[in-house]
Amino acid sequence: MLEGLDTRISLIYEPIADDLLQVEEKLASLSQTDMPHMAELLEYVLQAGGKRMRPAITLLAGNIYPHNHALPVIMGAAVELLHVATLIHDDTVDNSPLRRGRRTVTDLWGKNVAVLLGDYVFATSAVFVCETNNVRVIRRFSETLMDLSSGELQEYFSGSNSAPSRSEYENCIYKKTASLFQTASETGAILTDAPEDVVFALKRYGYNIGMAFQVIDDILDVMGNSQEIGKPVGNDLLQGVLTLPAINLMEKDPNCGPLNKLVSGNGRKDEAVVQEALGMLQDPEILSSCFAVARDYCTEAANALSIVPDSPARSSLLTLTEFVRERSY
Amino acid sequence: MLEGLDTRISLIYEPIADDLLQVEEKLASLSQTDMPHMAELLEYVLQAGGKRMRPAITLLAGNIYPHNHALPVIMGAAVELLHVATLIHDDTVDNSPLRRGRRTVTDLWGKNVAVLLGDYVFATSAVFVCETNNVRVIRRFSETLMDLSSGELQEYFSGSNSAPSRSEYENCIYKKTASLFQTASETGAILTDAPEDVVFALKRYGYNIGMAFQVIDDILDVMGNSQEIGKPVGNDLLQGVLTLPAINLMEKDPNCGPLNKLVSGNGRKDEAVVQEALGMLQDPEILSSCFAVARDYCTEAANALSIVPDSPARSSLLTLTEFVRERSY
Repeated sequence: MLEGLDTRISLIYEPIADDLLQVEEKLASLSQTDMPHMAELLEYVLQAGGKRMRPAITLLAGNIYPHNHALPVIMGAAVELLHVATLIHDDTVDNSPLRRGRRTVTDLWGKNVAVLLGDYVFATSAVFVCETNNVRVIRRFSETLMDLSSGELQEYFSGSNSAPSRSEYENCIYKKTASLFQTASETGAILTDAPEDVVFALKRYGYNIGMAFQVIDDILDVMGNSQEIGKPVGNDLLQGVLTLPAINLMEKDPNCGPLNKLVSGNGRKDEAVVQEALGMLQDPEILSSCFAVARDYCTEAANALSIVPDSPARSSLLTLTEFVRERSY
Repeated sequence: MLEGLDTRISLIYEPIADDLLQVEEKLASLSQTDMPHMAELLEYVLQAGGKRMRPAITLLAGNIYPHNHALPVIMGAAVELLHVATLIHDDTVDNSPLRRGRRTVTDLWGKNVAVLLGDYVFATSAVFVCETNNVRVIRRFSETLMDLSSGELQEYFSGSNSAPSRSEYENCIYKKTASLFQTASETGAILTDAPEDVVFALKRYGYNIGMAFQVIDDILDVMGNSQEIGKPVGNDLLQGVLTLPAINLMEKDPNCGPLNKLVSGNGRKDEAVVQEALGMLQDPEILSSCFAVARDYCTEAANALSIVPDSPARSSLLTLTEFVRERSY
């Protein structure tokens, strides 16, 4: 099993443990380069760990009809690399010093290295996905690349705009997070020639678990559990980005002073205003209605699995929705 | 014909004038987005002009066996978008205020917007290339993405290293420039089902004209013709990057003081040292031996066309080698 994963996650990953190790080896092999400095940089970003949830979902979705292991392994590596590349550029744009409790590339080596390294990791993910030789999968992947980048741009500009509506928020978190989860599960199914209704069901699963995941991340960002998220609390508000809890509050009180201050003007926000807003967002009623949204997405993800044939991989996907749901209390 | 192209280039592009207009329309269509701010940004970077030499080469290579116009048009747009994305990130990393005499995205809107916009344009190029539905072409494209990004990283780190050897230089300009020219011509041929020997010949053509193009750019960077290159003179040396003229001088005089100062240490270099080095590099003997290298590449490009069937497109590709060669006197 992968080092550092807790027992619960290890059990969920049980049916695909060997394949996930192969993904890990494929990622590690990237650091074997004779380009000066590169080995060190790649080793740093690829060993950053995390739960490897996206490749695990690809492997689990590709394990319902498990006649082919090689293609989901390649795809899992591609999906994780795309995720890593996005994080490198996000942290650069946000000037984030920390990610999962470790210093970011931009903090350690500067913005320029982070821009170029992110590009390189993007490129590597594209080369990996081409190894699948499957045009449908490659197309989904490139559409996801587009979702991710337009989602980031949208979020960036929303910081100097008015507060987003709930549907704008959903669209934004779909693009920046759920799109990749959806592609992770959908492509795992496509690459093992699952029937179309199963492909569609797994795609719906990926979408919903991705949405749940991001909603919970956004709630944790205002709740102050910085250990869980490994980055400073109130990070979104500091960037002028309003997420579900803030949208919830704005729906109740459109004239809310601190939030209106945060969405007007450019650049990094006033720390005192952020603290004041955080205080208002930590209202139990607001938080619990946001958590309910996340749980609804988890329920939808679980429901999507109803037509998927019973198997250890299906059970794991189901348990994963519970695992995500439990972060929502 | 495209606005702003000089008569000479317009004549060369004659056989593919209609297709090139379609590429231009495809690029312009990207700005029709309802994402706030995006239309303005995309319009700015996509109307930056330039000679559109890469898509023109794709279209000319795809016009030898001209039974299919649609695919080379899509590919031409993808190739140009990849080029534009690379420029946006390069200028960000180099802190360049100007490109082709216009202010850069990073200068006008800041580094963050430049990082995200570059990612978005990269993603768009990947979506376009998928529209060709041709796995071989998609794979070549993603390998080129990898060449471009590793070339940029290599060049970036070379600035805090020792002087590169001639073969390291060749490898670097292959990755950052010739690779995309090579893919531009090769994919044009592949997408029109040209026989394999013609595909190979056009690939060789693209490689050589791309190498010539970059060598000449590097010479112009030290020669001081800032009008021609549209950016400040000595830009490479300011970044601590030694190109062919400097490598040439180092081969003659390995202890050359100013050049050795420029390759040691990090960051932007001392302006006075750069000026001193520029004075030494503007030696006619050094410049003419560098121009000879560029002309050799042009000759190789022309030779590669020997097995390509005679046609107006072939004549244009040949004339293009002369056009590039003429920049080398």
